[in-house]
Formats: sequence, structure tokens, C-alpha cells
Amino acid sequence: MATPLRIALAGLGTVGAGVIRLLEANGALIERRAGRPIQITAVSARDRTKDRGVDLSPYAWEDDMTAMAARDDVDVVVELVGGSDGPALTLARNTLQSGKSLVTANKAMIAHHGLSLAQSAEAQGVALKYEAAVAGGIPVVKGMREGAAANVIERIYGILNGTCNYVLSTMEDTGRDFDDVLKEAQDLGYAEADPGFDIDGVDAAHKLSILASIAFGTRLDFQAVDMIGITRVRAADIAQAASLGYVIRLIGMADVDHDDEGARLLQRVQPYLVPLDHPLAAVDGPTNAVVAEGNFVGRLLFQGAGAGDGPTASAVMADIIDIARGELGAPFSIPVAELEEMPRADAGHRISRTYLRFIVADRPGVLAEITAAMRDAGVSIESLIQKGEPANGDDVLVAIVTHEAPEHCITEALKLLEGSASITEPPLVMRLLGS
Amino acid sequence: MATPLRIALAGLGTVGAGVIRLLEANGALIERRAGRPIQITAVSARDRTKDRGVDLSPYAWEDDMTAMAARDDVDVVVELVGGSDGPALTLARNTLQSGKSLVTANKAMIAHHGLSLAQSAEAQGVALKYEAAVAGGIPVVKGMREGAAANVIERIYGILNGTCNYVLSTMEDTGRDFDDVLKEAQDLGYAEADPGFDIDGVDAAHKLSILASIAFGTRLDFQAVDMIGITRVRAADIAQAASLGYVIRLIGMADVDHDDEGARLLQRVQPYLVPLDHPLAAVDGPTNAVVAEGNFVGRLLFQGAGAGDGPTASAVMADIIDIARGELGAPFSIPVAELEEMPRADAGHRISRTYLRFIVADRPGVLAEITAAMRDAGVSIESLIQKGEPANGDDVLVAIVTHEAPEHCITEALKLLEGSASITEPPLVMRLLGS
Repeated sequence: MATPLRIALAGLGTVGAGVIRLLEANGALIERRAGRPIQITAVSARDRTKDRGVDLSPYAWEDDMTAMAARDDVDVVVELVGGSDGPALTLARNTLQSGKSLVTANKAMIAHHGLSLAQSAEAQGVALKYEAAVAGGIPVVKGMREGAAANVIERIYGILNGTCNYVLSTMEDTGRDFDDVLKEAQDLGYAEADPGFDIDGVDAAHKLSILASIAFGTRLDFQAVDMIGITRVRAADIAQAASLGYVIRLIGMADVDHDDEGARLLQRVQPYLVPLDHPLAAVDGPTNAVVAEGNFVGRLLFQGAGAGDGPTASAVMADIIDIARGELGAPFSIPVAELEEMPRADAGHRISRTYLRFIVADRPGVLAEITAAMRDAGVSIESLIQKGEPANGDDVLVAIVTHEAPEHCITEALKLLEGSASITEPPLVMRLLGS
Repeated sequence: MATPLRIALAGLGTVGAGVIRLLEANGALIERRAGRPIQITAVSARDRTKDRGVDLSPYAWEDDMTAMAARDDVDVVVELVGGSDGPALTLARNTLQSGKSLVTANKAMIAHHGLSLAQSAEAQGVALKYEAAVAGGIPVVKGMREGAAANVIERIYGILNGTCNYVLSTMEDTGRDFDDVLKEAQDLGYAEADPGFDIDGVDAAHKLSILASIAFGTRLDFQAVDMIGITRVRAADIAQAASLGYVIRLIGMADVDHDDEGARLLQRVQPYLVPLDHPLAAVDGPTNAVVAEGNFVGRLLFQGAGAGDGPTASAVMADIIDIARGELGAPFSIPVAELEEMPRADAGHRISRTYLRFIVADRPGVLAEITAAMRDAGVSIESLIQKGEPANGDDVLVAIVTHEAPEHCITEALKLLEGSASITEPPLVMRLLGS
């Protein structure tokens, strides 16, 4: 019989238990595909006594998970603890330094420390794999690292956070407002009690920065991601978007500017208006989807479940199978030392149609003030809707869609309106995604 | 410098020239991702003098392409000649037997001879790779072989032929009839002068049989694919489908029946009615898309360009990069000797809603005859539309959608109607895809 690949599992939450269930259910098939048995030898979690619905008795128990890196009976450590630093990072470092491979679902840790971990893996000739860290069960890390490897990637973007997509698509389906839908999502377990990581765009930004590094061959740079979350999107915005033939989706997008000063990387997470005929418009609920545009392959779309124990366990196990098959290549497709350090692009010259929503006092001259600012900034208005009914106390909503305009002109128009007594809350700005 | 991987290219049609252009355009990037240079050393095609828009002078020329298998300066032969047998197969066999890896875009050859070629590759410890043979640029072979490898696949289906999808979606957009749109597709180069391979479903069946083997771990069995093409789909069928909230797509679908007698494989290529809220309904033009449903990952969707020189060259080069990285694993995910021989399933007990379209003489009693046959076969009618205007000479069209019924009941109803003087051409039967 072929030598088993021996696994230690750190973290026995829903995903960790899911990995055990997956191996129980599909173990024989996995062995045939991997060419050798995959055996869990040791596990570790905070509470040994908790009932997780799986039998832990076959496995050695470690109270201190970082000790798993030193075990002789372990080839691969699977880190499912979470957190960008702390014990997860210590375990990851120890594992790689001791010449074992690491598989992780930890997007925060990869976004913050992926390069140093990858260097450690490369130095030791072991694998660092993190398919489950991006878009749950969708094999998009593999798709970019290998499937699209022959291409210069021109743009990569997608729906990377299931919680936000659930909230936005539920608002769309029900007409209900943000706070209401978020609360329901929390009650249903789709959103965390502290939802900031999701709704402020941090989680999507983690994933985007990882994808961008693989796609563009650049040094992973999470700090350079511009983030705007979805907390300020109202039911009225979704209704306005619908009347224009758009839905609103939180999208992470990255591409590269080339000009005389060289290449610059733009990474951002923002709510966009997505036209109904775009494949991302049909992505509802907690589903994730990633679009990659390559110079030879054209547009690729990868779609599937962005979270959940089953899909995440599937991605974790795909990484383990790769390792069992001997596929241990560079974690970011190109060795870390060869990744390009690319400065952050300024988005000011980017041209797009833009949705601007104002909440204004319902009094004479407000529209004149807004439209004058747009004119003075050189922004041409395609459509303007002022809703009759009050949107906030006595205040009313004004929604504008501009013709194509550089972003710096939009910024300038908003600057001209700063301090206006008529505008009662900061305007909401969302770009329209092209088809 | 790392040792170059040396490539011989057999076939310099649009895809072969595309591979050369891809390497010219993206060679430096590909070298970084592959970890070593990819060098074309020799090329072969029928006509040496033809202008292909690429410079062939750097490469050795072979008049006899099968000779490339014996060259000392070649590590990988890329077969882009086509045809299930003949010189392509000879080259493939010689290449593998001489211990070189083979990359091919040849779906017919893989569908007919994939297993024997894979055995030869396994025996020699070299790679047989064929990403470009299925769904053009979409990395779905990799997605199934590796990305979804931890799953029992419950069903795999998709839009696998761009020509058919172009014809059907153009009929849908324009209301024009089949012959008219096919002719236009031929004029535009989207369909072959002899379109049978595409429109009769053979090409989709080649691809489906390959995907099914990887997905289910079964011996590739192209002969067992049931095929119904799109030649009998009329504009009126598309209009009827639209009125019900469906579009018509040619879909290849495979799944496994489990009963007391063991597992049986159902593979078929048929036009289906696809509900508008299904991701495949939005797949227009020559785009391909594959859905795989796994027991842990849930539903995965892979979508992209199904043909064309750029996308196909991208898939070919992804295989070459894999080989350069040392990824040479079993061509069908599991070694050929371990693939299961699975008998063909009988579809009779499958339950679905079904669309039946009759062309009938416009005279009294026709509807009574049809509806009586349905009743006698135990098929319940959900909706029935008889169009007033003539569909064919004086004959008129009757379209029926049934409630869920086993396929053998539908077959029985049609048998009862066989030889009816009122029904002037064989009925068209299409199943409705679930959401």
C-alpha cells in the first residue's frame, strides 16, 4: 500500500468537523484520487469535551495546538483556527519551519502574512496551500494559479463575501432595509454578532488581495485595498438601481494601470451597480463568484458556495489531495522573491458612469446647488430622480446617474458640495459596472 | 537557468498559431509561473509555405509529424491536428511510448482512445493532458480532476458546444428559424461547412464522456452517450419555451443511478428547457458552461469561452505549465486500471416535466387523440397550446408541457400515437431542467 499522508487538524469548529466528516464519507474515493490514504493522526481544539458530532477517539489529542508542528507522525498541518495572528500564525510558522506542509482556510492570516509564510514554505520545499481562504468551495485559487496561468490577467473581480451578498440580494427581493435584513441574517447565523469584518468589506478585501497577488504576480498588499462597505446602502438605492436595470453587489476588483511611470495596482472593494445582463447580477444569497479576464482566455467565471462547512472542507481536502499527489509548487504561483512590488494606483483618472445619492432638505434651490456643482466639476448628468416621499425625517432622496466621467471630477463635485446646509448626510457614491 | 521544457507542435491551424502567438506574447510571464522556459523546438503541418501570421523560422520543421515523437530535442508533443484516429492517434501513441508527454486539444481522440493513451502515459510515467479538449479555455478538467477531487460528484452537466449555443441563443434573440441561423453561423465561421458533428450533439458527447469519466471515476464510454441534436428545434419551440419562462439549450448531462443491481451511468446530450433563473439560461452565444454538483462542495459553475484560438491556446499552455512544474498525475484522476466499468443506465424511470411538440393536421379529433394517449400512458398534462397559425403547410403546432412523469410513460404515450394519420412529423421531446 502507498504511504499514507498524515494530517493534523488544528481547530474543530464547523469546518474542522466538516473535514473529519468529509474524510469519513469520501475517504475511499479520496484515496483513489490522491493515490494514497489520507489519515488524520492528531487533532487540537480549545475544548476537548465539546460534542462536535464526530468521533475524535481515533486521533491523538493535543491541548497545545502549536505542538502539532513538532509531531513525528504528521506530514501536513491543517489550520482552521482563524485570526490573522496569535496561535494560528505561530502554528503556521512552526509547521513550515519544521518542514511540514500547511493547509489553511485562514484568509486574514494569508492576507497579512502570506508572503513570509510562502517564503518559509519555499525555503523548506514544502507546500503552503489556502484554496479555502478565497471564495469557499470554489477552486479559484487553483483556477488562477494553474488554470489561467498562461495569461496576462487584465482584471479580476467578483462577489467575495457571502454575508454581504445575502444581505443585498435579500434587500432586493423583499424591499426591506439594511438594518432589518442584517439582523435577520445574524439570527439565521449568516452574519456574525460583530458583522464589521463582513459588511465593512474587510473580509472581501482579504480575499481580493490574495487573488490579486496570484493574478498579477505582485506582492500581496492588503493594506492597499480601498474599502467601502455596504452599511449605507438603503432599500431606496436598490429600488433606484432596479429602475435603471441594475442590482447592487459588493464587488472586490483589482487591475493594473500602465503608464509612463510604470505599472500600478488598483484594488478596491465597493458596492457597484451591476447590469442585469452581467453574470454577477444573477449571483444571489451567500453564493460567491469570481470573474477573471485574461489576454488569451477572455472572460472566465467561477461560481459556487462561498462559505459553509461542506464547501470549505471540500477546498481544504483538495489542497491535501494536491499535496498527496506531490504538487507542492510556489504558493503564489511565482516564487515570492520574484513577485513584483507594485505601487498603489490612483483611481482619479478612471472613467465610469456613477450613481450618486443625496439625502437633502426638501426646500427650493437644492437641485440647483447639486446640478451646478456637477456642471462646475465637468460631470454630465444622465438621469436625476428626486423622490417625492420623505427618506429621512422630512428630508428627501435625490439619485443621480452620471454619464461617463473621470472619478476625480466626481470627487471634485462632491467637494464643491461639502458643507452645504441642504445636504443632510454624506452622499453615497457607487460606480456602474460595465457589461 | 532552469532547464527549458522543449515542445513540438503538430498542427498549425488557428489553435497551433495561437499557441505560438501566446508564447511570443506571454513567454516571460509563463517562464516565471512555470519555473522554467517553455521552448518550441519543432513544428509540423501539412503545408510549410502557408502564411499563418507567425514566424516559424526559429523552429525545426518536420514534414512527417509522427517523426516528432522520436526527436531528442523534444520533451512534450502538442497535438493540434484533430481527428479521432489517423495521424493524430499515431503521433499520440508514438509520443507516449517514447516516454514523452502529450498535450492535446483533440476531444474526439480522447473520447475514443483516451483510456489506452492514459494507460500508455501511466506506464511510461509521463503526462497525458487534454484541458483544451473540453470547454475550450475553461479550466474544467482541472476543476474536476483536482479542484473538486474531494467530492462524490452527483451530477455534471453543461453547455459544451458553442456552435449549438450560438444557434439557439441567436434563434431566441431574433425569432429566426434554425436553417437560417445555421447558415449565418457557417458564413461567420462559427459553424463548420459540415455541421453534423456540432448540431447532432457528437462534439458535446465527446466532451461529456470525458467529463463523466473524471467526475465519476468510470471508464470513459463515449458509445453509451444518448444523443439528440438541435436540428429539429424550431423558432416556434423557442417561443413556446419563452412563454413558459424557459430558454432552450443543448445540454450534456451525466449522473449515476444506484439501485439493487449496482451503479449505472446515464450520459446524454439533448436540448433542454432551462428555467430563466438557472445560471445556464444566461449563457449566450459561443460561451460554454459546466455545472458540477458535489456531495460536500454543492454546486460549482465554470464558465467561459468554449472555443477560439486564444482560449484554446490558453488551455493548451496551462497543461504545458503543469508539466513544466512536474504535475504529471493520472490523466483521468484515478489510474485507468482502477476506473470502474459502469453499465449504461436506463432512463425510463427518470422523472421530469417534459415538453412535447406535435405538428398535426388541422382537423377535428386531433387533440382528443393526443390527450387520450397521454391519459392512457398515465401522463398528466400541465399545459397545452395549439397555435392557430399554420406551422408547416396547412399543419399546425401543438405544444404540451406535462406534469412530472417517468420517461417510460412519455415513451409509451408516443408509442400509442405512432402511425397516427393526424401527426405529420415525429414529435419533438425535450425535458425541463430543474432550478
